[in-house]
Amino acid sequence: MILTVTLNTALDITYRTAALTPHATNRVAEVTERPGGKGINVARVLAALGHESVVTGFVGGRTGDALRELLAAEGPGETRPGDAPVTDALVPIAGTTRRTIAVVDETTGDTTQLNEPGPTVTPAEWAAFLTSYEGLAARADAVALCGSLPPGIHVGAYAELVRLARAARRPVLLDTSGEPLRRGIAARPDLVKPNADELAQLTGSREPLRATRDARRRGGRSVVASLGAAGLLAATPDGSWRAAPPTAVRGNPTGAGDSAVAGLLSGLVERLPWPERLARAVALSAATVLAPAAGEFDREAYADLLPRVAVTEQSSQPEQESHAPRQHR
Amino acid sequence: MILTVTLNTALDITYRTAALTPHATNRVAEVTERPGGKGINVARVLAALGHESVVTGFVGGRTGDALRELLAAEGPGETRPGDAPVTDALVPIAGTTRRTIAVVDETTGDTTQLNEPGPTVTPAEWAAFLTSYEGLAARADAVALCGSLPPGIHVGAYAELVRLARAARRPVLLDTSGEPLRRGIAARPDLVKPNADELAQLTGSREPLRATRDARRRGGRSVVASLGAAGLLAATPDGSWRAAPPTAVRGNPTGAGDSAVAGLLSGLVERLPWPERLARAVALSAATVLAPAAGEFDREAYADLLPRVAVTEQSSQPEQESHAPRQHR
Repeated sequence: MILTVTLNTALDITYRTAALTPHATNRVAEVTERPGGKGINVARVLAALGHESVVTGFVGGRTGDALRELLAAEGPGETRPGDAPVTDALVPIAGTTRRTIAVVDETTGDTTQLNEPGPTVTPAEWAAFLTSYEGLAARADAVALCGSLPPGIHVGAYAELVRLARAARRPVLLDTSGEPLRRGIAARPDLVKPNADELAQLTGSREPLRATRDARRRGGRSVVASLGAAGLLAATPDGSWRAAPPTAVRGNPTGAGDSAVAGLLSGLVERLPWPERLARAVALSAATVLAPAAGEFDREAYADLLPRVAVTEQSSQPEQESHAPRQHR
Repeated sequence: MILTVTLNTALDITYRTAALTPHATNRVAEVTERPGGKGINVARVLAALGHESVVTGFVGGRTGDALRELLAAEGPGETRPGDAPVTDALVPIAGTTRRTIAVVDETTGDTTQLNEPGPTVTPAEWAAFLTSYEGLAARADAVALCGSLPPGIHVGAYAELVRLARAARRPVLLDTSGEPLRRGIAARPDLVKPNADELAQLTGSREPLRATRDARRRGGRSVVASLGAAGLLAATPDGSWRAAPPTAVRGNPTGAGDSAVAGLLSGLVERLPWPERLARAVALSAATVLAPAAGEFDREAYADLLPRVAVTEQSSQPEQESHAPRQHR
């Protein structure tokens, strides 16, 4: 079982409109709702890959009830016969789960995103979560910590969750940004998956190889940076690799990073060599961009792309520029 | 008791954002929710004027539950000590009450509105509503039929409700648009309150006095047209009047028409002479534009404006242009 943690879950709502006109009244043609938040997206992809998962985090209010109901309806069944189960271990809170609204303009295909602030989590609710988390982590083959922190949670929360997973000798992946990432990486997670912006914010460098290796020095045992259409760049104890899709794909990138996390986690649990993990993560990510529904992946595209991902090993020597005086920040 | 009918109720959500950027991710700073739909807005203003009201229409799903809970919390109490009660007589349906989202851009003050489609109402649900409506209308001092029709309701629905109210000898006001207005007015409601656009769509004329009198010939016993900042124009069996606020007011016009309806209804039930009804409706409408929260009215501004509304009688003779050959459409 893989445990995914989503502290700031969301009810993801998609509105389709003929065209979004600011400062006017817009009729919404179609409304769809889905359980959301990065860890929940990761679990959905893990299920499709045949990996049983448990989702935890916080949930509350009417939107929280809707999220749980939709999550229960998503499991293996008529529409997803081959999927592994996703078990709901979300912790109830007094606050109300946030909504995110994606307004898709059908004329341009562009999306305008409106994200509500998350509910404030109380110290007692955080304590209840920690108790539940320790029990779940002890049973997990791997743990993924995903997304932003809701109000009320201390900024070192991910560092605390990384340390608890490590104490239980469970591999732990961290996918967050800003100060929670900076503190979390110092607690020595097994894997961090920043995107280019998050990596630059963490390390101060926009040069991916240098920044990825810098992130390793900050505490990440392995660092896999997602570089958008360019694929992934991995720096690990076993070596460094770039993995790129055979062709650039165009579509909706929502959830592509979460699919990459699911690819990396499943590869870790299956003890695949790094090049295979990376190929899977890149193919899943590209197949997510190609899928018509945001955050889903196109299974046929995935099967087609997987053998065609190019994985190239990078020099295992320190990067060239290390001969020049290195700037420490 | 005044009965207000809102067939297409809504959970009105307001998002405050620093600035709404289309095709980007926008953080919502503040979320507020309120029971919405025109008849519910009318009842809220009636309550503030001391008139007991009953709201009916359809409600369903989680958003419907939220609407009912907020409606129950709105009544007389600590925050609204002087208000009359608003009684919930909404009819439950299997569908889910729609949401409307008003995104207020705090930089420009402009609002972008996103309106979900309403739930489909089944024939059995419409039949259950009619039974409930007949009982409520028989006890009402006046009936107001407000807003759009949700999917599944026949286009002659308001005509049917007007006839039932007339059969029960209850005064009935109709505030809708398009084909439901065209059919509803033919059933001879006591009062219709179109705005300038609705009136032009109904009559084909943009000349307000001519169009208002045309609307009377179509079946409205009295017609009160709301002309935005210019106030109201009334054509009644007792004469025609214009009523205008002392100065043009600037602000958010959301709900101004509903406040005017509440002013007209309360004046009708209190048997005020037409000029007083119109002055009240104009002052309430302007005080709604001036209120910081959409759909509320500023009570101090109302008290200040009421004695200063200018009501002028229009010629009771047929309008000048009637001497020219009249075009019948």
